[in-house]
Amino acid sequence: MPLQPARTVEELRELRELTGNENGAQRIAWTETWERARRWLRGKLDFAEHEVDEAANEWFTLRGESDRALLIGGHIDSVPNGGWLDGCLNLLAGVEVLRRLHEEGTPPLTVRLVNWADEEGARFGRSLFGSSAAAGSMADQDELRDRTDAEGLRLEDAVRAYGVDLDRATDARRQLENAAAYLELHIEQGPVLESLDLPLGVVLGTFGVERHLITWTGQAAHAGSTPMNRRRDALAGAAKLALDIRRIAAETGDGAVCTSGAVVCRPGIVTSVVETAEQLLDQRHLDARKLASMLDEAKRASEGFAGEENVEVAWSKIWSIEPILFDERLIELADEAVTEVAGTSHRLPSGPLHDAAEVSRAGIPTVMLFVQSLRGLSHTKLEDTRPEHLELSVQALDRLTTKALDTLS
Amino acid sequence: MPLQPARTVEELRELRELTGNENGAQRIAWTETWERARRWLRGKLDFAEHEVDEAANEWFTLRGESDRALLIGGHIDSVPNGGWLDGCLNLLAGVEVLRRLHEEGTPPLTVRLVNWADEEGARFGRSLFGSSAAAGSMADQDELRDRTDAEGLRLEDAVRAYGVDLDRATDARRQLENAAAYLELHIEQGPVLESLDLPLGVVLGTFGVERHLITWTGQAAHAGSTPMNRRRDALAGAAKLALDIRRIAAETGDGAVCTSGAVVCRPGIVTSVVETAEQLLDQRHLDARKLASMLDEAKRASEGFAGEENVEVAWSKIWSIEPILFDERLIELADEAVTEVAGTSHRLPSGPLHDAAEVSRAGIPTVMLFVQSLRGLSHTKLEDTRPEHLELSVQALDRLTTKALDTLS
Repeated sequence: MPLQPARTVEELRELRELTGNENGAQRIAWTETWERARRWLRGKLDFAEHEVDEAANEWFTLRGESDRALLIGGHIDSVPNGGWLDGCLNLLAGVEVLRRLHEEGTPPLTVRLVNWADEEGARFGRSLFGSSAAAGSMADQDELRDRTDAEGLRLEDAVRAYGVDLDRATDARRQLENAAAYLELHIEQGPVLESLDLPLGVVLGTFGVERHLITWTGQAAHAGSTPMNRRRDALAGAAKLALDIRRIAAETGDGAVCTSGAVVCRPGIVTSVVETAEQLLDQRHLDARKLASMLDEAKRASEGFAGEENVEVAWSKIWSIEPILFDERLIELADEAVTEVAGTSHRLPSGPLHDAAEVSRAGIPTVMLFVQSLRGLSHTKLEDTRPEHLELSVQALDRLTTKALDTLS
Repeated sequence: MPLQPARTVEELRELRELTGNENGAQRIAWTETWERARRWLRGKLDFAEHEVDEAANEWFTLRGESDRALLIGGHIDSVPNGGWLDGCLNLLAGVEVLRRLHEEGTPPLTVRLVNWADEEGARFGRSLFGSSAAAGSMADQDELRDRTDAEGLRLEDAVRAYGVDLDRATDARRQLENAAAYLELHIEQGPVLESLDLPLGVVLGTFGVERHLITWTGQAAHAGSTPMNRRRDALAGAAKLALDIRRIAAETGDGAVCTSGAVVCRPGIVTSVVETAEQLLDQRHLDARKLASMLDEAKRASEGFAGEENVEVAWSKIWSIEPILFDERLIELADEAVTEVAGTSHRLPSGPLHDAAEVSRAGIPTVMLFVQSLRGLSHTKLEDTRPEHLELSVQALDRLTTKALDTLS
C-alpha cells in the first residue's frame, strides 16, 4: 500500500482528542497524559522493534540490510495548553514513512523513529532533555537533579517515576553510535513560509543564541519631590536598550533577531523613580561571528546609555548556544524533495531550538523540514497548519527519506 | 524660659530610640509601636488639654483669649523602615512652640497641635486618613472598610481596635470649625533646598497629581522565529513613552515632574516578544492647566507610539488630585519668618502630599515650611537633616506662629 498522508492528519486529530482539552494539548512530559500518548504511539508502531533508552527516549526500529541507521525524530510531549502539531506531526509523519518502508520489505539501511523525551522542558525549564542525553551534551546532572516544578517536585524524582536514573541518562548516547543521518519534520512556529505563500521549507540550521540579564541600577527617589534633572532612572536605560536592539538587529541583517522579553522594575511603585531595572535580552543569528558582534554592539550601546542616564549597567549571561549548521548534502536532498512535492523550495534558519540541533552537535549529519504555520503561532491552542500542507509535509519527509537511503547506502 | 530648639533634636533622638530599630522607624499607624509613640507624645504635652477625635487624631489645646484657633500639625506615624524626622519633626517643633506660648501666658488665639492619624497609609494604602476625615474629603467609607493589610486584616477592624468607628470618622470635621489658620513644618523629602544650599523654604502648595495605568497590547511571538518586521512589541510602546515623558516635563517647565515607576511585561519570558506591558505614570504640577496639558500630551504621544509600533494602548486613571495652593498672606509671613531665621528664603512647591493639603482643601488658610533633607532621601533610615538645620526649623515655626497670631488676632 502506498503512503497515505491523509492518515497522518487523521491520527493527529485522534491524538488531540485523546490528550487535549478545550485549552489545547496537555502532553507535558513526565505526566500521565504524556504516558497515555506514548502508549497510543506504541500501538501505531507494533510492526517495529521497540526500545526505551536510559533517558526515556523511545526507539522504533526497522532492521535494514545494514546496521547503519537513518534516524527520524520528533517528540510527543507538549507545553501546557499547547498546539496539536508541535512535535507530534514529526512522529506521525515518521510513522507513515515507516509503514511504507515496512510494507516494501527490508530497507538498505536500518531506519529508526525516535520519540525524544521532554523536548519542551515545560515543567522543569530544561528543554531537549532526552536528545541532549543521547547527544552527550546534557548539562551538569547535579544541577538538573534539584530543579523543581511549580509544585516543588524535584526533577530527579519526577523522571525516576518514568524509569530514568539521572546518573545513567547519558548512557542513551549509545543509541547514536550507528547513526548515519537524522531527519526531522517540524511546523515552522514562525510566519516566514506563510508570508512567502509556501507550504514547505528546508532548514539551514538553528540560530545561535545569546541570553543575558542586564541589570540597570539608578537611585530610588520620590516621584513628587525629585526634579527631573536630579534623577538616576534605571528604567530609562532599559527603555533605550529595548528600542536600540531593533537598530542592532537591522544593521546585522541576515535574519538577525533581538528580543527584550521583560523589564522588572524595583521598587516598582507609582511614587518612585525606578532604582533597578532587570532586563532580559535574547539575541539570535545563524552566523556565530555576527551573533558575537550583535552582543558586543548591545553591550557597547548599554554602556553609552548608562553614561547618558548616570546609572550603572551590569551584564550576566543566562545561557548561550552556538549556531548549529545542518548538513550540506542533506540540505540539497531536502531541497530536491520539497521541490518535487511543492514545486518550490525555500531555505530558512530555525529560530527555535529543536532536538535536531542536539543530534547535529553530536556530529550526525542532520537536516530538518519546516511546514507552514498559520499566523506563525505555536505553543497555543491556536497553533494550526492547513491539512493539505500537512499532507504535503508527510510526502516531503517520505521523499527525503528515500533520497537519504539511496545516498547513504 | 525661651524657646529651646536643641531640645527638639534631643526629643527626636529619644523617639527614635523608643520606636525604631536597626532598619529605621517602625511607627506604622494602628500598631503597638505607634500607640507607644502616641503615649510618649502625650507625656510631653501634659500642660495642654488633650482630646482624641472620631478619626483618632489627637488634639492638644492651649486655650487663648479667642475661641478661634491657630492649628499646628504633624503625624507621628511612619512608613515601615522609615526615617527619624518625617512627620514627627513637625509635632516636636510644635511641642516646643506650645511650651513657649504656655509659659508666656494666654495667647490671643487658641493654639492647637494636632497629631494626624495615619498620614502615611503604609498598611492599607490610604494615606491622609485622619486629616481627610477632618477635612470632609475622606473617600467612600465602604471602599475603605474592606481594604486589607498584607496579613489580610481589614482596615475597619484595625481602626476599631484604636477606637475608630469608620461610620463616624468624618465627625472629626467639627475640629476644624473654629480654625483660623494651619501651619506645618516638614522635611523637604527632596533635593531642592540642599542643591541651593539653603536650610529652609516656604511651600507654595502641593502639586496636583495625575496617576494612570497605561496598558500596551501587542502580540506574543517566539523570540527566535518571528522576524523583526513582523513583531507587535508592547514593550516598545512603553519604552518610548518612558523616555518621552522627560521631554513633556521639560517642555512644560515650572517644576513639572513625570515618572514611570514600573513596566510589567507579560508573558515576561526571555523567549517571547512582550504581549502586554502595563506601565505606571505619575505626573505632577502646581498649575492645574499645565497638569492637564501634560496629561493630554502624554496621551497624544502614546497614541502616536501605538501607531508606530502597531500595538494598542489604553489608559485608566488610578487617582488624581488637583493642585492645592497655600494661603498668600501666610506665605508672606512664612517668607519673613524664614528670612529672619536663615537670612534667605526660597519658595518651592511640594511634590509629596501632606496633611496640610487636606486642611487647605477644607478652606482653612494654610502654609508649610520645609527644612532641607540631606540627599533628598526620605522613607528610609537614611533620611537625615543636619541638627543645626533642625534647630533653625523650630525657630522658623516659632516665629511664623507669632506672626500668624499677631496677624489673626
